[in-house]
Amino acid sequence: MSSTAGQVIRCRAAVAWEAGKALVIEEVDVAPPQAMEVRLKILYTSVCRSDIYFWEAKGQIPLFPRIFGHEAAGIVESVGDGVTDLKPGDHVIPVHTGECKECIHCKSKEGNMCDLLRVNLGRGVMISDGQSRFSINGKPIYHFVGTSTYSEYTVVHVGCVAKINPLAPLDKVCILGCGISSGLGAVLNVAKPPKGSSVAVFGLGAVGLAAAEGARISGASRIIGVDVNPKKFDHAKNFGVSEFVNPKDHDKPVQEVIAEMTGGGVDRSIECTGDVDAMISAFECVHDGWGVAVLVGVPHKDAVFKTHPMNLLHQRTLKGTLFGNYKPRTDLPAIVEKYMNKELVLEKFITHEVPFAEINKAYEFMLNGDSLRCIIRMDG
Amino acid sequence: MSSTAGQVIRCRAAVAWEAGKALVIEEVDVAPPQAMEVRLKILYTSVCRSDIYFWEAKGQIPLFPRIFGHEAAGIVESVGDGVTDLKPGDHVIPVHTGECKECIHCKSKEGNMCDLLRVNLGRGVMISDGQSRFSINGKPIYHFVGTSTYSEYTVVHVGCVAKINPLAPLDKVCILGCGISSGLGAVLNVAKPPKGSSVAVFGLGAVGLAAAEGARISGASRIIGVDVNPKKFDHAKNFGVSEFVNPKDHDKPVQEVIAEMTGGGVDRSIECTGDVDAMISAFECVHDGWGVAVLVGVPHKDAVFKTHPMNLLHQRTLKGTLFGNYKPRTDLPAIVEKYMNKELVLEKFITHEVPFAEINKAYEFMLNGDSLRCIIRMDG
Ligand SMILES: NC(=O)c1ccc[n+]([C@@H]2O[C@H](COP(=O)([O-])OP(=O)(O)OC[C@H]3O[C@@H](n4cnc5c(N)ncnc54)[C@H](O)[C@@H]3O)[C@@H](O)[C@H]2O)c1
Ligand SMILES: NC(=O)c1ccc[n+]([C@@H]2O[C@H](COP(=O)([O-])OP(=O)(O)OC[C@H]3O[C@@H](n4cnc5c(N)ncnc54)[C@H](O)[C@@H]3O)[C@@H](O)[C@H]2O)c1
Ligand SMILES: [Zn+2]
Ligand SMILES: [Zn+2]
Ligand SMILES: [Zn+2]
Ligand SMILES: [Zn+2]
Repeated sequence: MSSTAGQVIRCRAAVAWEAGKALVIEEVDVAPPQAMEVRLKILYTSVCRSDIYFWEAKGQIPLFPRIFGHEAAGIVESVGDGVTDLKPGDHVIPVHTGECKECIHCKSKEGNMCDLLRVNLGRGVMISDGQSRFSINGKPIYHFVGTSTYSEYTVVHVGCVAKINPLAPLDKVCILGCGISSGLGAVLNVAKPPKGSSVAVFGLGAVGLAAAEGARISGASRIIGVDVNPKKFDHAKNFGVSEFVNPKDHDKPVQEVIAEMTGGGVDRSIECTGDVDAMISAFECVHDGWGVAVLVGVPHKDAVFKTHPMNLLHQRTLKGTLFGNYKPRTDLPAIVEKYMNKELVLEKFITHEVPFAEINKAYEFMLNGDSLRCIIRMDG
Repeated sequence: MSSTAGQVIRCRAAVAWEAGKALVIEEVDVAPPQAMEVRLKILYTSVCRSDIYFWEAKGQIPLFPRIFGHEAAGIVESVGDGVTDLKPGDHVIPVHTGECKECIHCKSKEGNMCDLLRVNLGRGVMISDGQSRFSINGKPIYHFVGTSTYSEYTVVHVGCVAKINPLAPLDKVCILGCGISSGLGAVLNVAKPPKGSSVAVFGLGAVGLAAAEGARISGASRIIGVDVNPKKFDHAKNFGVSEFVNPKDHDKPVQEVIAEMTGGGVDRSIECTGDVDAMISAFECVHDGWGVAVLVGVPHKDAVFKTHPMNLLHQRTLKGTLFGNYKPRTDLPAIVEKYMNKELVLEKFITHEVPFAEINKAYEFMLNGDSLRCIIRMDG
């Protein structure tokens, strides 16, 4: 047992007090874990676009003050009543999409929409008691997607924690907590391109490039990258993306450009932008007869996906995924092993690193479109 | 060789002179088949909702005068140059969705979107020369979806003709030419419900009931029928449909009604109405995590399918199909055999029968929502 078990821990956390305003490093009180919860010491975390969306709160429900962060790795500090799967000292990755192991979804072979612990973007409290575990001077600070990793300590439901190989370097595998697994799984578990397929990837951030990596692993013959930011094309070359389309360079819709490049459309397309027009293009650019499009980007809360139904009758398939359809506790340890045995390279997604005190820089890198993933060292 | 081979045949056809006006039985001249075409003597035909749409021409491109009809069976009268697969006397079913056997789609295992012969709702002429084979006093009458079976003789591309078992009763298997195969294949080839699934069918016309039949064959545990016309529920009881929902009986959207009936949604849903709101409901009523919705109804030309992208991220799949994804020449003979060996009952789809002279009655039965399929005897 650690000496802090059962006690409130006072530590540093990056608090978002207002939408779009710089995060402020504050001393927060982190309550001990309740039943079926664990308290984690976060060692490394990073910034995913979803952290930005809910912090900007443009087109998403605002909830402040809040502690963001959902790509991270750390060590179990203490566990609440009823937790038998984890113990202090375990190396773990917290995940926004949980796995209770008991509901119809967790028992189904398909998907990961756990009834109890599915990602909930609007909730800012723990599910057991509807309270936050974070406070400053007794005033609660909201959680974010059940993880809130921009804090030296955080409290997470045990179903949202994957226990991983203790030899895995946490400063690398932390990015498996969201973006990389989401992009990779969107291809390997959902789009499933047969060998030799052509694959379009919309959005060449870390999520899209993880999708490209999935396409490469699947033996795709062509990987076409689509992004409105040409800076992204440089990184993308390291990920097997061989052709690039910037929609801004064309007068016609990008789905038509891709149809022309490919003699009718790609076999698979993966949308990793969050932009609803890109989602529509990603769907309409797949080949009729067999094409499959997979949506990954988190949409604006009022976004409407629109298409003519005939595009579907022409035998295109439209799907979507959260966390690449991986069940986090069951599947994440094996993805970590893929990294350990070099099937999956994580280093090339990591473009920046900052100490925790400079977390706002990590936000800026993402906002400027400069970073794929920026690792934030919690001890700095 | 028949004595008429190579000659113009004068015969009766039901001509639609104007949108929505009663068909008129006229004497028409039917030119001999050109290269890769065959001339068929139609013995039985029926009315599918798509014949009505393009005749009403509400929300579809109008093209008149036109000879409708695309569910039929008959006998080859003569063949054009280059036709080796068929000979006079063969028993056949013409199909709007052709199969050239040479394009990328025909060679692919998936789908039936033949590059050369895919259904073309707006074209009224033969593909070889852009001309019609029908005329009255030298003035051309347009074809419909390459079949135009409301004529004692019609000319069809060889790729749109399935040769079937000569023992099959043509007055029954004629309905395999569109609706029944389309509904059946939507389930067996596209939705693929695992045994024990719950399946919702939107629209309980012949297409929807063929989908219900597919669900029954697949071992569905629940088949929920949805129709705005309660008259349809009586027929549907003969098709394994055990629960009914009339959207008009509820204040809330039908997708919510179905979600409540099923603890979150059905495993599969098949839309067979042509109404875009029903398409949206059919999609949104499938269970998150694994649900698959398949669109079959022919949409209004300006219809827009709309949904929040989060419905897709929650791991629902949206698909569509034409002719149940069957490749007509390859697959239709085997569906006829299913009927021959009593795996598939066609009689229960046939609610009416009229002589050709009374074809407008067949239209009325469909317009009034009274018929599933009405067989039109061409000799009457
Ligand atoms: N479904 C999931 O489980 C899941 C998981 C993680 C992230 N996401 C979402 O995936 C998306 C990508 O995340 P990320 O961290 O890689 O973000 P990112 O900002 O690093 O990358 C997004 C890329 O998309 C490009 N882009 C934006 N609009 C575009 C358009 N209209 N056309 C083409 N390119 C466009 C941007 O220039 C950028 O390079 C975000 O929406 C994020 O919220 C979803
Ligand atoms: N994709 C294909 O290959 C294919 C093939 C054949 C027919 N179709 C189309 O399938 C549809 C059905 O054809 P059919 O011949 O069975 O037609 P039908 O008119 O006999 O049956 C349609 C049924 O849908 C019901 N309906 C209409 N709007 C509805 C709504 N909003 N909610 C619930 N029910 C509603 C009607 O009451 C009717 O019972 C038509 O759109 C037709 O054009 C498509
Ligand atoms: Zn669960
Ligand atoms: Zn994320
Ligand atoms: Zn073909
Ligand atoms: Zn039809």
